Amino acid sequence: MNVNGRPYRTIWVHNENPQLVQIIDQRKLPFDFVVEDIDSVNPMAVAIKDMHVRGAGLIGASAGYGMYLAALEASRASNFQLHLENAAKILLATRPTAVNLAWAIDRQLTAISKENSNEAKIQAAFHTAKEIADEDADFCRRIGQHGLALIREIREKKQDDVVNILTHCNAGWLAFVDYGSATAPIYAAFDAGINVHVYVDETRPRNQGARLTAWELGQHGVSHTVIADNVGGHLMQHGLVDLVITGTDRTTHTGDVANKVGTYLKALAAKDNSVPFYVALPSSTFDWKIRDGVSEIPIEQRDGEEVKYIDGLLENEERRILLTPPDSNAANYAFDVTPARLVTGLITERGVCSANEEAILSLFPEKVAGF
Amino acid sequence: MNVNGRPYRTIWVHNENPQLVQIIDQRKLPFDFVVEDIDSVNPMAVAIKDMHVRGAGLIGASAGYGMYLAALEASRASNFQLHLENAAKILLATRPTAVNLAWAIDRQLTAISKENSNEAKIQAAFHTAKEIADEDADFCRRIGQHGLALIREIREKKQDDVVNILTHCNAGWLAFVDYGSATAPIYAAFDAGINVHVYVDETRPRNQGARLTAWELGQHGVSHTVIADNVGGHLMQHGLVDLVITGTDRTTHTGDVANKVGTYLKALAAKDNSVPFYVALPSSTFDWKIRDGVSEIPIEQRDGEEVKYIDGLLENEERRILLTPPDSNAANYAFDVTPARLVTGLITERGVCSANEEAILSLFPEKVAGF
Repeated sequence: MNVNGRPYRTIWVHNENPQLVQIIDQRKLPFDFVVEDIDSVNPMAVAIKDMHVRGAGLIGASAGYGMYLAALEASRASNFQLHLENAAKILLATRPTAVNLAWAIDRQLTAISKENSNEAKIQAAFHTAKEIADEDADFCRRIGQHGLALIREIREKKQDDVVNILTHCNAGWLAFVDYGSATAPIYAAFDAGINVHVYVDETRPRNQGARLTAWELGQHGVSHTVIADNVGGHLMQHGLVDLVITGTDRTTHTGDVANKVGTYLKALAAKDNSVPFYVALPSSTFDWKIRDGVSEIPIEQRDGEEVKYIDGLLENEERRILLTPPDSNAANYAFDVTPARLVTGLITERGVCSANEEAILSLFPEKVAGF
Repeated sequence: MNVNGRPYRTIWVHNENPQLVQIIDQRKLPFDFVVEDIDSVNPMAVAIKDMHVRGAGLIGASAGYGMYLAALEASRASNFQLHLENAAKILLATRPTAVNLAWAIDRQLTAISKENSNEAKIQAAFHTAKEIADEDADFCRRIGQHGLALIREIREKKQDDVVNILTHCNAGWLAFVDYGSATAPIYAAFDAGINVHVYVDETRPRNQGARLTAWELGQHGVSHTVIADNVGGHLMQHGLVDLVITGTDRTTHTGDVANKVGTYLKALAAKDNSVPFYVALPSSTFDWKIRDGVSEIPIEQRDGEEVKYIDGLLENEERRILLTPPDSNAANYAFDVTPARLVTGLITERGVCSANEEAILSLFPEKVAGF
């Protein structure tokens, strides 16, 4: 999507030097737009671990490009295969719970192992990294097209011409290679000339809404308003939200959705006010084993310091300030689970379906055998 | 309640100088505990307007003591009555929507007008100010006793001995003269030896939970955990909350509750998980005219800068930092309305009742004639 009027992806190979990968250092957003050069596997591992890049799709793509850089290095090492396998281990250890990480690394190891010469292995790694990134972008683009149809329908039923969409956290292009999941329908609608306006939950405690979603929407020119996470219910009570779209970190094949904490509260408000509540996801986010999201999906508890302290801009410098009495405890549950009964539908790369096992399997029939 | 091990009210007459009123400058909490001397009506007006003191009960008590200070000044002025009436206007203009403000000023004007000598007028103002404050504290104490019975009941049904209570915003003793409304049952249970633990919503955007509720609970020794406003739903899904108690800024006589924005979302989660959701209030908070809270109670919209910026402690100094892209818009709705159907009960100074017209009027039968 656009940054300062120029189209960007979140990761790409340097225009003039194909041995260099470039990323956006997302830790610095929204206050600084910094492009970082990555020339080998170690700095790529640091970039993933320290969250210069984050989000399911982008983590996978970064691991893919990390393995390409590893292949370049391996060709200069004494043992190509050993170097490659070490690199895989280093990348895999960065974010152990990210499903896309292992998947991208495995895909690279398989592709590279099919070639004989070092030169051919490097070429295979390059093409596989590009394939992973392109596929991610393509799936998100398709999610956008399927979501666009929903937004068009809502627009046609409305008296006034603005379609108001509420989103929580960042399931934007910054979390993928391009378009995003929850944001893909929004960008598609915007690009199609529909007057969309987005309510952006600031998304405490890490404020991904206020920092990332607001920034990327603003850069692409999409009208938006940042709100406290407390406000969505009031807006829905007063008819100010036509549609909620969020992303998801894991979705059971029965339709339960684990996403950034607070998503469940918005889903309850949407239900109470008959506002459609959609979840957008590439199918890689489905968990084909778990049936009951609330009882079976483990919820990560992070450091309470993320609640007690907050980062922001002071005199052109990013600083961290204390928000609570120094001695108060804080708890930091990172996700919650929205039961399928509160989800109007899922927007996937293959189309929109209801949030239940039968509907999901009818879109992904090849998964039936998996049980 | 206790501060540094010593019992305090939020407003009092100086121990050695009865011409001086003292307050806690709440703007400085939780990082500094500053007692401010108020010697005349103008600084009291500033203290109310600039929110050194805030909260329905405390605003009323501050206006009461402001009128006492005005009477002291009036006795040195050329025209006692004129000075007093000017003082009333100054105080009334500080927070025009606060119901308790006008009520306390009128009560003072009536009491003072019954006396003839300046000395007697000053005495009347002194006693009326004390009456207003004592009555506020007494009503809150009674709310605490009625709420204690609810907490005891929950404690008796539980396997483990901790009663987990979630609250939103600050309806604590800092908002009244003592005890608070939502916190009164918590303090009563704590003082009765019940093992209570409080989940404190940080309460964006003004963070009254993280700043004030966490501080006052900590000072009184009550175990508590600060959480992001997004977290309550997850806690309730997992049986970690036994009871929600909030305050209210206005309550229709049909049981709809206008309180700090986000209260509605917690009420929805409580309903969805069969967690009791109580609202504590002195009866002065009832609106005896309005029937439909959602459509009839006006919701204050405050400056979006309160969402975009946040205050906290940096190197022992309170500083304000920017949280969003500089150009993003922000909306700031201060309250929302929780429909009566989501409220388990109201805890008033006369007892606990259901959130409906019949039950409320059976506790306050003298109000029936008001329709």
